[in-house]
Amino acid sequence: MNRADCVNEDARDPLAPLRAQFALDRVDAAGVIYLDGNSLGVLPKSAIARTREVVENEWGVGLIRSWTTAGWIDRSQRIGDKIARLIGAGPGEIAVADSTSVNLFKALTAAIALNPGRSRILSEKTNFPTDLYIAETLARERGLELVLVDQPDIASHLDDRVAVLMLTHASYRTGRIYDMAAITSAAKSAGAMMIWDLAHSAGALPVDLHGAGADFAVGCGYKYLNGGPGAAAFIWAHPRHTARMDREGWRPPLSGWLGHAQPFAFASHYEPANGIQRFICGTPAVLSMATLECGVDTVLAAADRGGMTGIRKKSLALTDLFMRLVDGRLAGRGFTIVTPREPDQRGSQVSIAHPDDGYAIMQALIARGVIGDFRPPDILRFGFTPLYTRFVDVWDAVDRLASVLHSAEWRDPKYAVRAAVT
Amino acid sequence: MNRADCVNEDARDPLAPLRAQFALDRVDAAGVIYLDGNSLGVLPKSAIARTREVVENEWGVGLIRSWTTAGWIDRSQRIGDKIARLIGAGPGEIAVADSTSVNLFKALTAAIALNPGRSRILSEKTNFPTDLYIAETLARERGLELVLVDQPDIASHLDDRVAVLMLTHASYRTGRIYDMAAITSAAKSAGAMMIWDLAHSAGALPVDLHGAGADFAVGCGYKYLNGGPGAAAFIWAHPRHTARMDREGWRPPLSGWLGHAQPFAFASHYEPANGIQRFICGTPAVLSMATLECGVDTVLAAADRGGMTGIRKKSLALTDLFMRLVDGRLAGRGFTIVTPREPDQRGSQVSIAHPDDGYAIMQALIARGVIGDFRPPDILRFGFTPLYTRFVDVWDAVDRLASVLHSAEWRDPKYAVRAAVT
Repeated sequence: MNRADCVNEDARDPLAPLRAQFALDRVDAAGVIYLDGNSLGVLPKSAIARTREVVENEWGVGLIRSWTTAGWIDRSQRIGDKIARLIGAGPGEIAVADSTSVNLFKALTAAIALNPGRSRILSEKTNFPTDLYIAETLARERGLELVLVDQPDIASHLDDRVAVLMLTHASYRTGRIYDMAAITSAAKSAGAMMIWDLAHSAGALPVDLHGAGADFAVGCGYKYLNGGPGAAAFIWAHPRHTARMDREGWRPPLSGWLGHAQPFAFASHYEPANGIQRFICGTPAVLSMATLECGVDTVLAAADRGGMTGIRKKSLALTDLFMRLVDGRLAGRGFTIVTPREPDQRGSQVSIAHPDDGYAIMQALIARGVIGDFRPPDILRFGFTPLYTRFVDVWDAVDRLASVLHSAEWRDPKYAVRAAVT
Repeated sequence: MNRADCVNEDARDPLAPLRAQFALDRVDAAGVIYLDGNSLGVLPKSAIARTREVVENEWGVGLIRSWTTAGWIDRSQRIGDKIARLIGAGPGEIAVADSTSVNLFKALTAAIALNPGRSRILSEKTNFPTDLYIAETLARERGLELVLVDQPDIASHLDDRVAVLMLTHASYRTGRIYDMAAITSAAKSAGAMMIWDLAHSAGALPVDLHGAGADFAVGCGYKYLNGGPGAAAFIWAHPRHTARMDREGWRPPLSGWLGHAQPFAFASHYEPANGIQRFICGTPAVLSMATLECGVDTVLAAADRGGMTGIRKKSLALTDLFMRLVDGRLAGRGFTIVTPREPDQRGSQVSIAHPDDGYAIMQALIARGVIGDFRPPDILRFGFTPLYTRFVDVWDAVDRLASVLHSAEWRDPKYAVRAAVT
């Protein structure tokens, strides 16, 4: 495999035309290779016109009327229904609102309430910190125990003490993915509720929440869904749970007015809306919802090109190519690929560890125009978004990484200075 | 007072030049008089260029780097410091994040934790519903009692059972404002924590949280702060409380990663950030923060025109004029002004009640281009934002309202059909 092979691969790629959906002209012109869509997806061209429309016309001219005339009030459900098609959920089952952290708080609270009499929340030690922090505080307040184990030990900890098993489908650190169906089945067999965080899965690989029989899920709008910085997040609950909540009048912990059965009656007492709608709390961030919808649409545009199956196929080809090139061109440079080689065990990123010098190497690489990121203590992360990442980008990224190593330019002391955000 | 007098009043108005900050050309050209800035403030012109910059350059080209290079990571504090200048708070004391509902949940949880051993949350019956809903659920979960009383009965209910008194400074229904200093003092004397919701105060009238000795406050970004639909909200805590939280390592209930002492260390265990920063939870909605800052800047632009004092003076003149015109021109039409006549008891809106026909009258008025809104069961609300509402707008609005009544066009059955959002 050489660079020309990569160019040919791009020419044959059925997803290649979808790259034109993104505003990458100036990024390309600057020689930047963006491999950080797992942190912040790139800008869909449609979001430029859409934000202008929302700001200048819907807000500027429609003003308060736009809640009905522009459909702001129904936007959460409309976008939720689109996301549902990407993750094996049904229409009306997803609420788009708040942040992933806040939605996880809602999901955890609900899962605990629906599974009383058990003492533990079980999760994995290297789960994304915000998930662990939310669970840690909630566990303290509810007198529960948050038990964090290594990934291989999860199954053996699934016993009748576990109220909830909470996992992130694709690890932000290593890109390892869980077998969602198998783990969910094990959790259900043990009588535990299963909550999946899809932050690094939604839009990146096929997810089948109903097929797996999961209980709750949350996810992020600004990574592989390309929804823009701080885009609204989402929450899903299996309809068997929302049906029970409907019957029992269950109230979410964040019982805000837009989760009320009749928000515009302005009643003094709270009565939860039916279904997932109860998990909406306050007034939604309309602008951030608008860009999120544009982002979700970029993924849905793959529908006639194999949909998530086509995306998955290219994702695996990109990550496989990256790992082979790292093996071949960076041998003896101290790197260890920590992302699983097995296709069914990895998501759409590759993480490589470098003892001691990972941070400086990543900064020097970014200075050369390849944008990945660093996660302590030693991980260089590279995300591959099949909608806009090309095979030739993979080649060029590894080529520049090799140059950074060969030239030793990463030893420049300026690259050792930690930025506020890494 | 006739229309020519109003035109003269506008010519003498020192705040009049500030109207040019807003994108009102097409609103004016359509003959629309917007008196709903208490629901959604109008679009600042600066927000048009700013959203383009954030979308097309910061997101589109800066991509993930913009968290540092464009300062996204510090935006909450920067905007918070600006809001602080409008409400008598200090720098570093306000976090801009999430929605008002979510922030109220944080503030209530903190206030209860800091004042243990008491059994009640006290509030007022017609407080904004989301405040009551959040308090109702939290009270249930904590085994507390939410006691709702009429406004005149608040003082007599302040006893040693009250952990928290939670009030909205300016009523969304009547526009009545509380004497913040007096009520806060009474609450403190009774040993209660005082939480103020400034949704209808921030940017509308002078607020002095430190002067009043308040404990916590929350507020909304999209009303008088002109921050755009669903703009981020804010939370304030008196530094004596955040200092205590620092000493005791107090963790907020929504302990998300951006409220961590070292978010980018990605530690497994939660350690709260110092000060108000701990109340930030997940990743902020960057776009909505950008428009919020533009909106806050429109209020700060009044600084050399008397600041909040100048805004307040004009606000009272506008609402006084409106009430006098309603008195004079709508006598015998069944209206009752429910907003206090006393200047020190009203905010920047006027509410008039009309038995039975209020909804239809408001819809007919909106069809004539005067945008107010309706709140059940019988209230027509009119908001006056001194930065862009003119005296002549007040005249014309009442003139059209009189025409709607005289013509009886509001009796058209189409105006009786309730919209999803009223």
